[in-house]
Amino acid sequence: MQRYSLVYTKTTKQTPGDEQSKNAQLLIKAGFINKEMAGVYAYLLFGHKTLLKIIQIIREEMNKLNANEVLLGSLQNPQTWVASKRWGDSVIDVWFKTKLANGTQIGLANTHEEPLTKIMSEYVNSYKDLPCYLYQFQTKFRNELRAKSGIMRTREFIMKDLYSFSKNQEELDTFYEKVKQAYINIFNKVGLGEKTYVTFASGGAFSKFSHEFQTISEAGEDIIYIDHQKNIAINKEVYTDEILNDLGVKKSELKEYKAIEVGNIFKLGTKYAKAFGLNYTDKKGKVKNVVMGSYGIGPGRLMGTIVETFNDERGIIWPNSVAPYNVHFITLDKKHNKQAEEIINKIEKAGFEVLWDETESTAGEKFANADLIGCPIRILLSEKSIKSGGLECKPRNSQKSDIIKEADIISYLTKTLNL
Amino acid sequence: MQRYSLVYTKTTKQTPGDEQSKNAQLLIKAGFINKEMAGVYAYLLFGHKTLLKIIQIIREEMNKLNANEVLLGSLQNPQTWVASKRWGDSVIDVWFKTKLANGTQIGLANTHEEPLTKIMSEYVNSYKDLPCYLYQFQTKFRNELRAKSGIMRTREFIMKDLYSFSKNQEELDTFYEKVKQAYINIFNKVGLGEKTYVTFASGGAFSKFSHEFQTISEAGEDIIYIDHQKNIAINKEVYTDEILNDLGVKKSELKEYKAIEVGNIFKLGTKYAKAFGLNYTDKKGKVKNVVMGSYGIGPGRLMGTIVETFNDERGIIWPNSVAPYNVHFITLDKKHNKQAEEIINKIEKAGFEVLWDETESTAGEKFANADLIGCPIRILLSEKSIKSGGLECKPRNSQKSDIIKEADIISYLTKTLNL
Repeated sequence: MQRYSLVYTKTTKQTPGDEQSKNAQLLIKAGFINKEMAGVYAYLLFGHKTLLKIIQIIREEMNKLNANEVLLGSLQNPQTWVASKRWGDSVIDVWFKTKLANGTQIGLANTHEEPLTKIMSEYVNSYKDLPCYLYQFQTKFRNELRAKSGIMRTREFIMKDLYSFSKNQEELDTFYEKVKQAYINIFNKVGLGEKTYVTFASGGAFSKFSHEFQTISEAGEDIIYIDHQKNIAINKEVYTDEILNDLGVKKSELKEYKAIEVGNIFKLGTKYAKAFGLNYTDKKGKVKNVVMGSYGIGPGRLMGTIVETFNDERGIIWPNSVAPYNVHFITLDKKHNKQAEEIINKIEKAGFEVLWDETESTAGEKFANADLIGCPIRILLSEKSIKSGGLECKPRNSQKSDIIKEADIISYLTKTLNL
Repeated sequence: MQRYSLVYTKTTKQTPGDEQSKNAQLLIKAGFINKEMAGVYAYLLFGHKTLLKIIQIIREEMNKLNANEVLLGSLQNPQTWVASKRWGDSVIDVWFKTKLANGTQIGLANTHEEPLTKIMSEYVNSYKDLPCYLYQFQTKFRNELRAKSGIMRTREFIMKDLYSFSKNQEELDTFYEKVKQAYINIFNKVGLGEKTYVTFASGGAFSKFSHEFQTISEAGEDIIYIDHQKNIAINKEVYTDEILNDLGVKKSELKEYKAIEVGNIFKLGTKYAKAFGLNYTDKKGKVKNVVMGSYGIGPGRLMGTIVETFNDERGIIWPNSVAPYNVHFITLDKKHNKQAEEIINKIEKAGFEVLWDETESTAGEKFANADLIGCPIRILLSEKSIKSGGLECKPRNSQKSDIIKEADIISYLTKTLNL
């Protein structure tokens, strides 16, 4: 249980003047983040809790794919990137570069294909060593010219990046489809499933298409076209007559939307394997290149997208799976503290997390705060609620409150939160 | 359960030629880390699991102190550091600096007193807002001239840094003692308690002493002096006649040791509060400076220290609390796979984590591997073990194995691992 009196970065009524994006405005007001500089945000107690919940949802899906979690460095050896011809600022235009004390220039990782391929070349020799799947939650640094979408496009952000190493195209294709499904599971679990579309996007040297996961939102920086009947979505970047023809869709049946790219999956072919000599010997003794794929989700951008999607004029409305707390418990009088603690302990034993506002603020302030922070259920224990027969419970996404008997609170929460 | 066939960064017999330190040699051979460049290591599956366990142990102690977990940025606004006069490379000689796309120079955080003090100045106004305690597990970048102690001194590492904001010296002193105890708990929990000493070290402008936590080890870069009878330890940097006199210890009673600094706690006084105008109004309406403290532990260095402390000629010997898995389960014949899975499921249900080597390697290779990786208990299910009456169980830190009946395996593990 988290007492609100022990939350040191409380909510604020001031709307930050220098934020254009709704996600940053709401998250700052609600005490989830703090802006440190343009494109750099600190995650505060609530924000960090939600971030960890998103990370855990992604982690579980990655582990189901039999992927190994690792953590690579941010500091990058230029030699590694020269090998793949991506050290140059004209090839990757978001490099941050710095210098070692001895004057050697080094980089800050904006992605990790190169260093991980290099590492895996030490572990992969035979067809018996393949396939391999490795992922991490690791900070990426990208020197963006402009950073204006709150936590959705920042100069420094945690990325879940998964990389696959396969014996051949077929093995890659099979895994790629599994990742696609894992991503769909993730977006469903964080509450964005209905608004998120697997979207055809540009491929690269080794594949006609990559796939993006695009969440429809007015805050989006991308344009996508959806054929709702065929359930096909296409990024504007591949919106050509030829490709529409390939996909069997007609312009007249496509609707245009703004959307946020919340994930992308990419077949890399043998580009990196060739650059780093990542080969294996097959059953017949023949040496072959490993075939790779890469798969990304930014937990911070996902958090921003959730806020853009679920809010009203009073604040954020978190899906239960990623709310910092399941329950926002309010008392108005110290004399109820003992009873409140007992109830909260019971609720936490049942597996729900509780934020308890036991401060000296007024009822009005506490209700406004609860709406701003946006936990799924608000519970009030007061003189009035007791007289009415128990606890006044109100889901954040409903106008209506119910009086629930203390004895029934667990079954109420179980029922309401598992909707 | 983790199948060893699905570990993609397996152990190696080669001793890395370019590593002087035992921790890096063992951790690389055992598949815990990979060296990316001097002073930068990737944590692989096993290493990342151990790192997360150390982090969780520290996190629980921090939460008990009512500290809020946050996550600040790595990219640093120079203005923030100019305010405290620490932007200059002559003041902090381990800065990494880089540039935004618009040419503005920025830094990579080597510590976070400045940005957090700045943030807290937005939340603290009144005595009612104090004290505050905030901590994070965040990457620090330090441009070390030499990096030669494996994962104990790197150019990039995760740090647990806790900061306290108090109304006055007395409140700081009380919390400082609580942190000292929390640190002792942490070092006890990770198995380093007996060899770790609270050590007097140099203070700063606001305090005669700071305290370090020093673990006695031949791999240490520090020299400390211990009076074992009085249980007082002193860092060489404050080993002067005056200070010995202050502490009431005699040179003749001090023994010299090499030691690894695994933690430090520091009273900062009002230095940063003054630089950032972090003030509060007291009960009488008087405006006062907030009094700060900072408290650090590097989980990576702690991991390196554990490896330096617990190893033998065959490999690492992990304390159970931080082992990547509690049990290293070995089968030698596929026909035992079904039975093995049932037993492992039972063991995992009881709360133990299992690494299962079901590969086609020889028994000798599997035993050598188990010793190298260093999980606390090795369990063998084989034709021979079954004939002997069950499972052959051997603690990593013992020469002796026991045959344990399948029905008794949970109570055996509970007893052996809780020693």
